[in-house]
Amino acid sequence: MTKKINVGIIGGAGYTGGETLRLLFNHPHVEIAFVQSRSQAGKPVTSTHADLVGETDLTYSTDFNKPVDVLFLCLSHGESKKLVAENKFSDNTRIIDLGNDFRLGDSVAGREFIYGLPEFQRNKIKTAKNIANPGCFATTIQLGLLPLAEAGLLKEVHTTGITGSTGAGQKLQETTHFSWRANNISAYKTLTHQHLGEINQTLKSLQPGFSEDVNFIPWRGDFTRGIFVTSVLESKLSLEEANKLFKEFYASHPFTHVSNEMIDLKQVVNTNKCLLHLEKVGKKLVIHSITDNLLKGASGQAIQNMDLMCGFEETEGLKLKGSGC
Amino acid sequence: MTKKINVGIIGGAGYTGGETLRLLFNHPHVEIAFVQSRSQAGKPVTSTHADLVGETDLTYSTDFNKPVDVLFLCLSHGESKKLVAENKFSDNTRIIDLGNDFRLGDSVAGREFIYGLPEFQRNKIKTAKNIANPGCFATTIQLGLLPLAEAGLLKEVHTTGITGSTGAGQKLQETTHFSWRANNISAYKTLTHQHLGEINQTLKSLQPGFSEDVNFIPWRGDFTRGIFVTSVLESKLSLEEANKLFKEFYASHPFTHVSNEMIDLKQVVNTNKCLLHLEKVGKKLVIHSITDNLLKGASGQAIQNMDLMCGFEETEGLKLKGSGC
Amino acid sequence: MTKKINVGIIGGAGYTGGETLRLLFNHPHVEIAFVQSRSQAGKPVTSTHADLVGETDLTYSTDFNKPVDVLFLCLSHGESKKLVAENKFSDNTRIIDLGNDFRLGDSVAGREFIYGLPEFQRNKIKTAKNIANPGCFATTIQLGLLPLAEAGLLKEVHTTGITGSTGAGQKLQETTHFSWRANNISAYKTLTHQHLGEINQTLKSLQPGFSEDVNFIPWRGDFTRGIFVTSVLESKLSLEEANKLFKEFYASHPFTHVSNEMIDLKQVVNTNKCLLHLEKVGKKLVIHSITDNLLKGASGQAIQNMDLMCGFEETEGLKLKGSGC
Amino acid sequence: MTKKINVGIIGGAGYTGGETLRLLFNHPHVEIAFVQSRSQAGKPVTSTHADLVGETDLTYSTDFNKPVDVLFLCLSHGESKKLVAENKFSDNTRIIDLGNDFRLGDSVAGREFIYGLPEFQRNKIKTAKNIANPGCFATTIQLGLLPLAEAGLLKEVHTTGITGSTGAGQKLQETTHFSWRANNISAYKTLTHQHLGEINQTLKSLQPGFSEDVNFIPWRGDFTRGIFVTSVLESKLSLEEANKLFKEFYASHPFTHVSNEMIDLKQVVNTNKCLLHLEKVGKKLVIHSITDNLLKGASGQAIQNMDLMCGFEETEGLKLKGSGC
Repeated sequence: MTKKINVGIIGGAGYTGGETLRLLFNHPHVEIAFVQSRSQAGKPVTSTHADLVGETDLTYSTDFNKPVDVLFLCLSHGESKKLVAENKFSDNTRIIDLGNDFRLGDSVAGREFIYGLPEFQRNKIKTAKNIANPGCFATTIQLGLLPLAEAGLLKEVHTTGITGSTGAGQKLQETTHFSWRANNISAYKTLTHQHLGEINQTLKSLQPGFSEDVNFIPWRGDFTRGIFVTSVLESKLSLEEANKLFKEFYASHPFTHVSNEMIDLKQVVNTNKCLLHLEKVGKKLVIHSITDNLLKGASGQAIQNMDLMCGFEETEGLKLKGSGC
Repeated sequence: MTKKINVGIIGGAGYTGGETLRLLFNHPHVEIAFVQSRSQAGKPVTSTHADLVGETDLTYSTDFNKPVDVLFLCLSHGESKKLVAENKFSDNTRIIDLGNDFRLGDSVAGREFIYGLPEFQRNKIKTAKNIANPGCFATTIQLGLLPLAEAGLLKEVHTTGITGSTGAGQKLQETTHFSWRANNISAYKTLTHQHLGEINQTLKSLQPGFSEDVNFIPWRGDFTRGIFVTSVLESKLSLEEANKLFKEFYASHPFTHVSNEMIDLKQVVNTNKCLLHLEKVGKKLVIHSITDNLLKGASGQAIQNMDLMCGFEETEGLKLKGSGC
Repeated sequence: MTKKINVGIIGGAGYTGGETLRLLFNHPHVEIAFVQSRSQAGKPVTSTHADLVGETDLTYSTDFNKPVDVLFLCLSHGESKKLVAENKFSDNTRIIDLGNDFRLGDSVAGREFIYGLPEFQRNKIKTAKNIANPGCFATTIQLGLLPLAEAGLLKEVHTTGITGSTGAGQKLQETTHFSWRANNISAYKTLTHQHLGEINQTLKSLQPGFSEDVNFIPWRGDFTRGIFVTSVLESKLSLEEANKLFKEFYASHPFTHVSNEMIDLKQVVNTNKCLLHLEKVGKKLVIHSITDNLLKGASGQAIQNMDLMCGFEETEGLKLKGSGC
Repeated sequence: MTKKINVGIIGGAGYTGGETLRLLFNHPHVEIAFVQSRSQAGKPVTSTHADLVGETDLTYSTDFNKPVDVLFLCLSHGESKKLVAENKFSDNTRIIDLGNDFRLGDSVAGREFIYGLPEFQRNKIKTAKNIANPGCFATTIQLGLLPLAEAGLLKEVHTTGITGSTGAGQKLQETTHFSWRANNISAYKTLTHQHLGEINQTLKSLQPGFSEDVNFIPWRGDFTRGIFVTSVLESKLSLEEANKLFKEFYASHPFTHVSNEMIDLKQVVNTNKCLLHLEKVGKKLVIHSITDNLLKGASGQAIQNMDLMCGFEETEGLKLKGSGC
């Protein structure tokens, strides 16, 4: 029996905090040391994650100074950097930040954060002390482009993506009011989404001369979980060559698969998978990619990174029963 | 050509205000004098009712002291009574309150409010100066029971009803957060819903000795518009007798119909109709009834009451194209 | 009082047939002579369009040989051409085909069909004897590009569009099974959608030298009504110039409006409107456009064409109360 | 390491077949010997359960004559009885039927089927050779009434329940057409639902004199997974007494919990749990109960029964990450 590690969550009351918690409860090698929440301190975790009723009596803690092996930061943008700067954590504590504070290579308090996209740099993650967990759109878009970038074949890309409402967080907002969002579609942050920074950083690292745009149109969807992305670019690859390139690239990666059949979003909802499907029409290569924004796009990938850092099986705690229908 | 009346709306920025406005824009006998909103004063009405873009340049007014023939109050509970008490309106101004402040017969500032359920008391409405517009659940439940009460055949009733999210208003709340409400069902105010007061008032007025309970279980549905209600009670009527009773009762009412086929909610969405369907199983008579909570359950019925009070055709401005699908 | 025209519908039992019927019931200048349906002949129209219960006793007819002023064909692809070829209709009967049989300029039985996009060629429609009503995606995409094409400023376009389930018709299919489609997104006909033919025909007619691709990615959405489209292209126009170009182009068109604010799909659901919103980021001009696929994308536009052909007000019968929420 | 058992599924292509398969893939003590499907024989299981892409290469088999320890029948009503009558299965093969063929105590081919509701008769299940797995509504309703029946306190019950679309199966039907069911509510089988047989059988077994009606109103909901039920009956128990009765009854049952807070459907979606919440208003005791119709209402309970019969931990393979949001 593997020794269990101690794990803490800071900011456990939000969506990514809750999803991280759900995954950790079923992880065979993890003991939860604490789940902190400033707003919910003292209350049972079931007060915000009501689906856990009957499974746990855990309450939110105020502080987080118990020593842990792995610490998950599930905070709003900007808060992680502040927290790491203002608090002293043990050198033995690995930090996995689910926000976007450290994704562009920033260091704080002597801690260097490694960009935690296993399909991009699994080996660096295995030896990392701190992880900047990728964004949900960033994950889904990159997984559709990595093999092309590594092969130096990227050109200007036109990408449209649609996201579930949980991507917008738990805060009450007009764009997440049910009466507005039900049966509705809308666009936002056209060509300026904040995930473009990390996307370009990865792509340029793989294909150094790449200077073209990833033109990304984000849409809000009327569902709670999942991201569907379609990317279009010119390519001289035949469909067969493109499929071969992608399948070889992902052959050793347990969560990312190239489907020969057209894909639909619910194939990945409630799983840590990313599915890809390629088409070639005329000169255009088209890549569809899908993830669950809270899993492969957030908490699932965070656990995957923990598994890699801690020497566990990469899929440990992540063999989830998908929703299917 | 009929002379047009002047109409004002107080509290135009909410759901019932918006729906009243949409109906009035297309009403052939109405001029809109003002649409007031405290929170949105000075802004275009399209800032809150964005579907009106391209149809109107109207802006929200701060005050409401232009003389009008009909004034609609689309306010939160408690605010209408305060407003009528604290302001002087012309004696020639008819007031239609869409809130629940006057439904139990309260008078304020010498104004008596008539309960505005046309199928119950159309003639009183025609000569009324002020109307208390019924609640959405109250309308839907009562229309399923009126003929029985008039015939003195009501007994203890078990009713379950499910409502769309617009019934909860525009305010951001946890129970209208999309990520919570999508694909969800929940119960609230079990057997204690505030509409029971007006329901019992009507039923006892029609069947004086009636002292049994209307046991009403309200549920929240994961859709935006509509109410589906099923009521069960013991009855000696055969199905044929019950259908005859109901059809005769509603024969002269243009919006309430007894369907011989099973009904489903979308038959009435975006219309001012109430559809009923009756079943008899053993000793139990079952009545299904459906409305659009914002139309027959609120703004549509308010316009219907205006039409009756002003001597217009009862259906004027209310021949709406239903959503159908 | 304008004299009423007689109107017939062939294929009245499907979604576009039903929607055409709902609109015609409320049209002040129309008498419905017959609604034909091969599969439903003899049954009440409420057996397929249950929302019409209480509004009509009309039944589906088998034949369609009553003389009418306007005949709507609401048939599956290929059936209209066959029907016009095999039957003799009066020379006084105007035909409006809602299918895609005549959109590329085909003539049958001496009847020439004019492409019925009023914003493109309203004057030709006014004098037309037969109309090929545009497709839903085709309408929404073209309205986002017409002003650019007329100005000769079109370049290669990247377009993504998402459609409601009613676009797929009433036939039971796996992709319209509720358990599959709810909360799901999927892609189909990537870069090969059949509406590209009519889109290119119009664009090339306005900008003769245009030979670049409209790269269109269609997605299936998890809602019933509406189309949301975003088109991206390079442009030297500033945002101000682009807005001016579009607003002037549509100034005289009552249903198509340029919004200064970001748009969302529900602004047009249950209306005949098309709303547009423009953005400029770097060198890229972005046009968002939205319609209700059953109205401006089908039956509403058909009535608009009828109004134009018959000399009625262009908006007659089309001042619809939108769903709003 | 526990020895693994061999398991077969007959009728694997439907919803309960697929969900059983998803659960078995992650069950630590199970090897899947075959998944049979008449309609899909020879095709990969991912052709119908596309969410399993990347997880399995299994194909549907035509026959099912490999010896297995446990056989799941996921067939349409009537087919299980036929199959067991016409085929010879090993005496060592335990059969779990997910249909309703054996729920009322029928024996076929010498096989006696035990009603598989663990909260009702766990010990009988442990030694059973064949299990009739309860219906989804039946499970949810019974779990709300069992403690009262055991205490002899049942009276006439009024129950309303709403079910997700997966309860209606994978076959294409008008009532599962997305364009119809989205945003819709409807009623069916009023007071005559087929699950009333098994419900009454259990209740009368626990409270022998019980002869009153369970008046059950089933509704169709516009979501895919889950059942929400509210039952109302007269009771002399105080709320405290009722909660005590229920909590003691379920104390040893790992999946059924009494919540002190109001419950909502998504608390149990994608889990094998049943949550209950009790209220007392006047003389009326109200019990809300919720399950996922495909899990505790079907395949999850089938695995739970398998675990009990095979001597595994009752929760083995059923510690599922709920959807939460």
